[in-house]
Amino acid sequence: MQISVNRIHNDIVTIGGFSETPGEGATRPTFSTAWRQARDYVIGQAELHGCHTRIDGAGNVHIRQRRLSFDARAWLCGSHVDSVPHGGDYDGVAGVVLPLEILRAAFECERPVPMELVIFAEEEGPTFGLGMLGSRAWVGELSADELSKLFNQQGESYLQAGHPHGVRPDRVEDDVLQPTGVIGLIEAHIEQGPGMWRRDQRLAVVRAIAGRRQYRCTVVGEANHAGATAMSDRRDALVGASEMVVGLESLAKQTGRGAVMTVGRLVSLPNAVNVVPDRVEFTIDFRAGDNDTLDATHPLIDAMIRSVARRRSLGAELVQTEHAPAREMDSALVKRVSEAAAREGVPDVPVTVSGALHDSAILSPHVPTVMLFVPSRDGISHNPAEFSRVEDIALAARVVARVVGGTA
Amino acid sequence: MQISVNRIHNDIVTIGGFSETPGEGATRPTFSTAWRQARDYVIGQAELHGCHTRIDGAGNVHIRQRRLSFDARAWLCGSHVDSVPHGGDYDGVAGVVLPLEILRAAFECERPVPMELVIFAEEEGPTFGLGMLGSRAWVGELSADELSKLFNQQGESYLQAGHPHGVRPDRVEDDVLQPTGVIGLIEAHIEQGPGMWRRDQRLAVVRAIAGRRQYRCTVVGEANHAGATAMSDRRDALVGASEMVVGLESLAKQTGRGAVMTVGRLVSLPNAVNVVPDRVEFTIDFRAGDNDTLDATHPLIDAMIRSVARRRSLGAELVQTEHAPAREMDSALVKRVSEAAAREGVPDVPVTVSGALHDSAILSPHVPTVMLFVPSRDGISHNPAEFSRVEDIALAARVVARVVGGTA
Repeated sequence: MQISVNRIHNDIVTIGGFSETPGEGATRPTFSTAWRQARDYVIGQAELHGCHTRIDGAGNVHIRQRRLSFDARAWLCGSHVDSVPHGGDYDGVAGVVLPLEILRAAFECERPVPMELVIFAEEEGPTFGLGMLGSRAWVGELSADELSKLFNQQGESYLQAGHPHGVRPDRVEDDVLQPTGVIGLIEAHIEQGPGMWRRDQRLAVVRAIAGRRQYRCTVVGEANHAGATAMSDRRDALVGASEMVVGLESLAKQTGRGAVMTVGRLVSLPNAVNVVPDRVEFTIDFRAGDNDTLDATHPLIDAMIRSVARRRSLGAELVQTEHAPAREMDSALVKRVSEAAAREGVPDVPVTVSGALHDSAILSPHVPTVMLFVPSRDGISHNPAEFSRVEDIALAARVVARVVGGTA
Repeated sequence: MQISVNRIHNDIVTIGGFSETPGEGATRPTFSTAWRQARDYVIGQAELHGCHTRIDGAGNVHIRQRRLSFDARAWLCGSHVDSVPHGGDYDGVAGVVLPLEILRAAFECERPVPMELVIFAEEEGPTFGLGMLGSRAWVGELSADELSKLFNQQGESYLQAGHPHGVRPDRVEDDVLQPTGVIGLIEAHIEQGPGMWRRDQRLAVVRAIAGRRQYRCTVVGEANHAGATAMSDRRDALVGASEMVVGLESLAKQTGRGAVMTVGRLVSLPNAVNVVPDRVEFTIDFRAGDNDTLDATHPLIDAMIRSVARRRSLGAELVQTEHAPAREMDSALVKRVSEAAAREGVPDVPVTVSGALHDSAILSPHVPTVMLFVPSRDGISHNPAEFSRVEDIALAARVVARVVGGTA
């Protein structure tokens, strides 16, 4: 089977051309014309190369070799073609054109491949306010009734907006994933962080998708005149919050095991040059690859914040605003993919944790799941400057072809 | 001479009633009707008690006993009656009604007092974008030409808006302060910080008005996905800026000698919960009671910021945006006022540094100057909740009466 870098390149360029904002990045909201053109391009390419297609009630696309019935047990391999506004050409698309290329290469050498290409519907989330809708509905997490209550900006529900594209509420339940029919799911994706690019790693295997806890922290002190208040008389909310921000970084580093903590939003009030700040609100985004780490670190965050507040006579309130559990990938599959990578010339493929969420996180409790990462140049993603090497996508395709072809 | 707490109380209440925002604090922008009513009330009270009045070309009011000609050598004692929007009843007013009460008390017992009450014009600054305009013009720092280029929100210049209230451009230069005619200036003011109130100090003598340097600091890192970027791969501008904020607090405490540093404004970008911040801008307001401390600390601030930035591979730019030198008060006068305080039952009057600027800072290079502070409840100022005890203002009046009456 000959994986073609050129065909993958053409796919990326062609799908990148389907955008509501040509020249200003990929804008393919789910059910838009640009999104439909991208989906139809993949279906068209596959059908030209001996495949047939099925769209399930939730709008996910399933593509198999014509010789492989939709009842036959098979691997799943896929990702998404919807994008954030002004996004890049690789996020999601890389993981769709990879199995497409395997299907084309298999067609050329007339080899059977027990693999289904899946295009998950609405992964990103901005269109209906929640992401991974297609995969959530497919595993039975979301019912047709729930999909009818998710609306886009035009006021159409997911069911209404999806009807012209194959969404059928009466079939959502019947079409739900049958895990016994699945050997395993392999999703390839761009890393969306700078780690692999900096370390010149061409491929990585994901052992877990990080769980995420988000918090809102409010620190309350006392507003005073910046000139007339001695240092010892201050209860400065911003200095207190700053100590907490530095403390969170230390905590994440101490935790290790790939844990990350980010204070992304911070607002200080009254925010005047000559007034000691009396109120700071900030967010904490804490991710880790296993739930034990998430659970064990929560009280440490709380204790650190309380300790700083107490020492500085500040008020502090910590509220958890989100709790998404970590999803471990299938360890046998991680091993199998790593072995296939070794045969493709990557002997010690790095094993990593995905900080971002993906459809694989939704599928992983139901079927053996693994992800493959290719590097993102400078870690840039959700941005027109997003770039990954087609050669790396082709390498990942050869690894996946080995696994699903039974030659790993 | 009998200083009357009741009369001072009446003054405060009456002047507090002159406001553009009745019930919502004192709003007396310079040249407004409320401001004019306050000024005329003071003039009226003084003239009822044997005084005559002169308004100089810049709009400052000068009031003396009728028996004391405006050519005679005299003490100056005064402050301002203009306020910030929704300010308090004591800021400035306390320092005006104090010499008014001395003039009334002297009138009652027919005692001559070689003292001039001064109401400085436009101290606060919001009306024409620059504060202490009356005192600056009086000492020759601002010419009539320069006053003609300062405009209020209605588009009137200081000269145009001040004309109905006695401002005369052709007399600004002629009326300039003659230091030889001044024995010394004593300005009483509320502290505007919480220190004295917390320590239950009823009176303090100011040995210096702090100099102020303001800076704008910009920290530049790299925006990355909060989940997909390992702690070791980050260049987080906010964690770096937070370390600098904490470092500035330490530096101020190490500097001692009443030095204070405040980060009042801080803005983090892009300020999204799941993005590592790549740009933080913050201000530094640094004040100290002597210029040596200001000079010596500047390179320490610079070095601390550079060191944090270098260690974290961040860009950092520190720009000085203001430089107002510290103004030392007259040490002989500090001693004399302290002795007078001792005779009024305050044996070890605290000697302090004013963090806020006042007209005294403008006058001090020209005439021997000293300030007296009375405590502000909880340090609250520029706020309708501003409060100081009339008993403390009366105590300060008795001390000033001793000094100007030659009975210290």
